[in-house]
Amino acid sequence: MIVEQFFEDYELGASRRTFGRTITETDIVVHAGQTGDFFPHHMDAEWCATQDFKQRMAHGTLVLSIGVGMTASTINPRAMSSGYERVRFIKPVFINDTIRVVATIAEARPHARRLTHGVIVEKVEVINQHDDTVLVCEHLYLVERRTPANAAAAAAALP
Amino acid sequence: MIVEQFFEDYELGASRRTFGRTITETDIVVHAGQTGDFFPHHMDAEWCATQDFKQRMAHGTLVLSIGVGMTASTINPRAMSSGYERVRFIKPVFINDTIRVVATIAEARPHARRLTHGVIVEKVEVINQHDDTVLVCEHLYLVERRTPANAAAAAAALP
Amino acid sequence: MIVEQFFEDYELGASRRTFGRTITETDIVVHAGQTGDFFPHHMDAEWCATQDFKQRMAHGTLVLSIGVGMTASTINPRAMSSGYERVRFIKPVFINDTIRVVATIAEARPHARRLTHGVIVEKVEVINQHDDTVLVCEHLYLVERRTPANAAAAAAALP
Amino acid sequence: MIVEQFFEDYELGASRRTFGRTITETDIVVHAGQTGDFFPHHMDAEWCATQDFKQRMAHGTLVLSIGVGMTASTINPRAMSSGYERVRFIKPVFINDTIRVVATIAEARPHARRLTHGVIVEKVEVINQHDDTVLVCEHLYLVERRTPANAAAAAAALP
Amino acid sequence: MIVEQFFEDYELGASRRTFGRTITETDIVVHAGQTGDFFPHHMDAEWCATQDFKQRMAHGTLVLSIGVGMTASTINPRAMSSGYERVRFIKPVFINDTIRVVATIAEARPHARRLTHGVIVEKVEVINQHDDTVLVCEHLYLVERRTPANAAAAAAALP
Amino acid sequence: MIVEQFFEDYELGASRRTFGRTITETDIVVHAGQTGDFFPHHMDAEWCATQDFKQRMAHGTLVLSIGVGMTASTINPRAMSSGYERVRFIKPVFINDTIRVVATIAEARPHARRLTHGVIVEKVEVINQHDDTVLVCEHLYLVERRTPANAAAAAAALP
Repeated sequence: MIVEQFFEDYELGASRRTFGRTITETDIVVHAGQTGDFFPHHMDAEWCATQDFKQRMAHGTLVLSIGVGMTASTINPRAMSSGYERVRFIKPVFINDTIRVVATIAEARPHARRLTHGVIVEKVEVINQHDDTVLVCEHLYLVERRTPANAAAAAAALP
Repeated sequence: MIVEQFFEDYELGASRRTFGRTITETDIVVHAGQTGDFFPHHMDAEWCATQDFKQRMAHGTLVLSIGVGMTASTINPRAMSSGYERVRFIKPVFINDTIRVVATIAEARPHARRLTHGVIVEKVEVINQHDDTVLVCEHLYLVERRTPANAAAAAAALP
Repeated sequence: MIVEQFFEDYELGASRRTFGRTITETDIVVHAGQTGDFFPHHMDAEWCATQDFKQRMAHGTLVLSIGVGMTASTINPRAMSSGYERVRFIKPVFINDTIRVVATIAEARPHARRLTHGVIVEKVEVINQHDDTVLVCEHLYLVERRTPANAAAAAAALP
Repeated sequence: MIVEQFFEDYELGASRRTFGRTITETDIVVHAGQTGDFFPHHMDAEWCATQDFKQRMAHGTLVLSIGVGMTASTINPRAMSSGYERVRFIKPVFINDTIRVVATIAEARPHARRLTHGVIVEKVEVINQHDDTVLVCEHLYLVERRTPANAAAAAAALP
Repeated sequence: MIVEQFFEDYELGASRRTFGRTITETDIVVHAGQTGDFFPHHMDAEWCATQDFKQRMAHGTLVLSIGVGMTASTINPRAMSSGYERVRFIKPVFINDTIRVVATIAEARPHARRLTHGVIVEKVEVINQHDDTVLVCEHLYLVERRTPANAAAAAAALP
Repeated sequence: MIVEQFFEDYELGASRRTFGRTITETDIVVHAGQTGDFFPHHMDAEWCATQDFKQRMAHGTLVLSIGVGMTASTINPRAMSSGYERVRFIKPVFINDTIRVVATIAEARPHARRLTHGVIVEKVEVINQHDDTVLVCEHLYLVERRTPANAAAAAAALP
């Protein structure tokens, strides 16, 4: 779905919630295979059983990738993902944990160099089935301002 | 390989370089399937051909996951990945681009609350075949200090 | 996203359109691996080059699975997918073809045995980048009627 | 294996049986990733536990794709898969269910427009470890008749 | 398909041929992900272009696994795969090469310790689209002899 | 990591040990999908439960591929993998078994035809969590001798 929003259209505090998704052994094996990270923390159940956390853990990049992916539901043609701030792995995610995401518009600030754009900060909270937050980050979007030029270009792009 | 390093053992400016890896169409399709992000920027070659960037782009989380994964070569039992700062998608990564990573110890700072640990910041630069930096981030590690208690625990854990 | 609709709420002729998706060699290799169908029509480029169609073709079940999957965007808790009618492979789908789907409510009919439910028929058309229809089918949904009992159960299920 | 059969060679009631195959969590995760259908019915074990069926279910297209794929054992160069009729999801398939397929030649009928071909209908029954039929469909094949021209072409194609 | 054969039933020189299969970039990426072997010979197109072989090569274990897998068409309940001899990587397999396999019964010899079994040696030749042999090996099967006890057990196992 | 070693540099008896890796249901499903070997020994939990070994087994080629892959940690630009000898499947590997590898330089012998190279034989032992050896093989490497010409070429290739 396409939802066109200029920088000025974002509402601070607006929030969206995703469905849940169970993180499976398959997800971890596939992520190891995609990234090449076969560290025993993720892949060796015997060794993990001897550690404090007792069991295999999801890669941090797996939780981040799935968490952010779960928020990729509508496309805003005026916005572009430009990075993350303050990514923190707060609790481990284990096989069979079920995560969901709450994403909240946390800040709207001018862009340091581009007058035609602003930066929208969406706080992403990944939460498990015990209501524990397991990962947080701030997702940065570069978004066009509603300048006359931008608005004209947007209108021209309409089908 | 296991390389044990306490907080005090990290050397500012120390740097390591990975092999290269070509980002394939397969990587993008697998990452879409893992994250559920099937946005046309990654999946629709026809639509992409009508856009400024002309071709399908890798997901930001794919470049981050593979880039960080490429640095996962030695395990330090005294360190734990705790998050990222300042993740920035600087240039798009296209199918058939080949990336490599340079990781540099950029900062060693006290931990805000734990006296027994410090924070090591490793700057991660993902660079393509044109020597363009495509992604940067700061990888944060929580690392034990060489306190008597920590050193004793480490020694006890030796095989 | 959840959109609750009883049988009576569907509007004949209502139509929705998906984004496009390029069918890749990866999709075919993954589908062969999932189904065990390694027939040379899908897997042997040399042999295909000697046939009328000249190149590897996507499996029929791949085009159906992705086509139907592309329509799985909103959940209706009052409906359940119960099958397909008149699935037809009209044209081959080749590697690098880009498909999109148009889904149209084509029929609303009583259920043969259940008074509390009706059958909604959604016509699914999978169309390639040349605007050729490559696959059609009728997707059948078993949907609750707005009986007092059903409506009461639905209301009780609200959060 | 190649088994050449003209339309006239099919025997009504002839039946073949496949080995069994256990449907795994991996199959569901891979199918979600291939189709983009991450509905909680397939992916969210916590939510499923609150529903009547109590656990994650395989996608209908997964059961159809694997079921049909299990019958793809011999190639008939005179036949072409052209679609399905009466696909019905009769019972859910859960993780760890083991399915097998019985395929029976159910009908041989003239083609509506092509005199040189007929339609062979193979009934496909997917059966679980409790001997419950979980999916049925009719697989349609367009098959050459043994006309002099067809038979001559077939003979010419022999190695 | 099940084809029951005792040790005495194998015929020296008997040979079978598989369909062809094109080795894709996907196969290499998936095999790297399964094995953890991300060596630049398989994954870095830029570096490969500077080497004698100019392009990415399939892993040896990939060619062996697919080659042997292509021969896994019929099950003999009296035989068990026990290993390989003389596996040799004769020529590299590149992306888009199409391989096929010829498997020939090369030797039938007594088992060193078990009187009730013999060893069948099947020579496996993997051949590319230029008719070059790219890999050879000897696949060893431990097969029951037609002793009275074995034959009685086999008969009892019939459905 | 690159470690340059000529034929003369290998030390008989030198040994290296890998981390452990748990073999998952996912690994087996992915390997079946990569190789096309869907034999019930690997894929049908119901049938396996009626057999002596009671449960699904990993493919021999899977254990070999992962075992060898786990040793692919450093690159020697003077060596090339050329095949295997005496591959033996000693014990089955089941889902959730954790394997590790010990690799030992077992032999250094002249090459039959090339004066400039020798053959290094590395014995590979794959061991499970019960310290049982499940697979052994001899991995053959073709390695350059320290001839003046070879050494000059190696020096010239240094960055």
